[in-house]
Amino acid sequence: MITSSLTEISHPIKNEFEDFSARFKHAMKSNVGLVDLIARYIIRQKGKKIRPILVLLSAEVCGGISERTYRGAVLVEFLHTATLIHDDVVDNAEKRRGLWSVNALFKNKAAVLMGDYLLSRGLTLAVNGKDYDFLGVITNTVKRMAEGELLQIQKTRKLDMDEQTYFKIIKDKTASLLETCCQIGALSSSDNPEYIEAMRVYGESLGIAFQIKDDTLDYDGNYKLFGKKIGADIKEKKITLPLIYSLGNVSKDEVREIKRLIRNGKEQKNVERVIDFVKTHDGLNYALDTASQYAQKAKSAIKIFSESQSRLALESLVDFVINRKN
Amino acid sequence: MITSSLTEISHPIKNEFEDFSARFKHAMKSNVGLVDLIARYIIRQKGKKIRPILVLLSAEVCGGISERTYRGAVLVEFLHTATLIHDDVVDNAEKRRGLWSVNALFKNKAAVLMGDYLLSRGLTLAVNGKDYDFLGVITNTVKRMAEGELLQIQKTRKLDMDEQTYFKIIKDKTASLLETCCQIGALSSSDNPEYIEAMRVYGESLGIAFQIKDDTLDYDGNYKLFGKKIGADIKEKKITLPLIYSLGNVSKDEVREIKRLIRNGKEQKNVERVIDFVKTHDGLNYALDTASQYAQKAKSAIKIFSESQSRLALESLVDFVINRKN
Repeated sequence: MITSSLTEISHPIKNEFEDFSARFKHAMKSNVGLVDLIARYIIRQKGKKIRPILVLLSAEVCGGISERTYRGAVLVEFLHTATLIHDDVVDNAEKRRGLWSVNALFKNKAAVLMGDYLLSRGLTLAVNGKDYDFLGVITNTVKRMAEGELLQIQKTRKLDMDEQTYFKIIKDKTASLLETCCQIGALSSSDNPEYIEAMRVYGESLGIAFQIKDDTLDYDGNYKLFGKKIGADIKEKKITLPLIYSLGNVSKDEVREIKRLIRNGKEQKNVERVIDFVKTHDGLNYALDTASQYAQKAKSAIKIFSESQSRLALESLVDFVINRKN
Repeated sequence: MITSSLTEISHPIKNEFEDFSARFKHAMKSNVGLVDLIARYIIRQKGKKIRPILVLLSAEVCGGISERTYRGAVLVEFLHTATLIHDDVVDNAEKRRGLWSVNALFKNKAAVLMGDYLLSRGLTLAVNGKDYDFLGVITNTVKRMAEGELLQIQKTRKLDMDEQTYFKIIKDKTASLLETCCQIGALSSSDNPEYIEAMRVYGESLGIAFQIKDDTLDYDGNYKLFGKKIGADIKEKKITLPLIYSLGNVSKDEVREIKRLIRNGKEQKNVERVIDFVKTHDGLNYALDTASQYAQKAKSAIKIFSESQSRLALESLVDFVINRKN
């Protein structure tokens, strides 16, 4: 299977994506010098823009891109940017997309406030446009994202994780926003509940596949471009699907031993032993299979739409997520 | 003039305040263990609850407290709590209201996420209640609060501040939320635009008076209970009204000398010289006079309402803000 690049995938909405970019840039402007400076810096950092692409494609398959679609795309990108900035503060991350993170360059204080600013700025766009349906979806998503991350912290501190909790966490912290993008795109161009539900299922399944794939890269990726190295999750004591599965297939003594290695994960040799353990006990294959099942679910969900360039793009996006190497 | 305590002031809405407290506690509950734990800790920290009191009193003078009023009161308290938690993260504050701050007890990561959670939780209440008028006011306020703080950071880094900028900052970072509380209270019980505007002006003026008074306490307060010591703002290089006024009345050489002392504000003797300078050049009296003018403006704004216990309470609240010693 040949995986297309994101630029190729978004080709059917190339012009609309440029319209979105111009609107996003415009909405980021501020009269406060420091806000404007940070905003222009964020625009320079670029990013893959998967979320606004999802909004645009979802609107397109459901009926067509409208003025409301653009507002939705700008809204989710504001929200996503806000959460990335807060994530970098809480993780003390120095780099983001190959450039300095906002917290590294402008300090934590400005970064936390800038995140709050972007979140509320996005919401004001929806309020001013009277997009109350978007607001209903998005405020609940922000809540789920924070709850998901807090649940992960709680479980991580105790090295206590099972598959059910893992799925709750990744649905809340990752899949919920992709789900929201697809719902907002659908809502902006259709009032057919079947269409909206189909796009919701597509977005959720894509998000789950995306996060599971991401978690397998911690065991099997190349050195991630501009990103983290293999084993970074283990060092942070994050127990993800490959490890959960492997731990479920060994004796209690072995579980205890692996958890001891994770607790002492600062030493590279311990991290490597955990990686070997997961590979030996089939955790990686299990996780990749599971990701593929959700990928399939995403593709099936959008079969109700007639074939079109946009539907094809949404299908290719699923392959892109599943086949990426970093 | 005898200043009443906040409990005395809020006496006319004593029962309604208890109803609010019960609803707030209930809305703070979460199925995620860590979220619930932090929420219960926040409730233990207590706080003066000026903002929900303002919502309740504003509704009462405008026509009467309704179900929507309670939602508004809970919403603003969620929002205020979220911003306090983020403030403590960015200031590295260890204490809040005499107890450990959330960041000190649960670490920065959980604190930033808890702030995001509370903000979105508050907004979902308004969305679910279809209080779109509240949402319009509140999302814009969150944006103004973040912008105001970012403008302050920008100006502080350069020791560059004039009276006009000072007023923009305190209106955005402090007065906007009190203004919003009064607007939301009014909106919840009346659709008379004159009433809503009167309460908006009251809230904004009260907020400005509150912040100016707060800034004078840095030069003239007692050791603030559970709070910061005299001169803390100077150490943080925050230039507020008393200092702005005094700097406007001396030669350029003296301005340069005072700014040099502020830049080297880590030494206590420099801080004390700045305090002396402000007192000698009448900055404290000027700021207190200005605060009194806004206090008067707040009281005048609500003269359009007939006399009642609630109007009296709003008047006493102005005196409380102006006369507090910490």
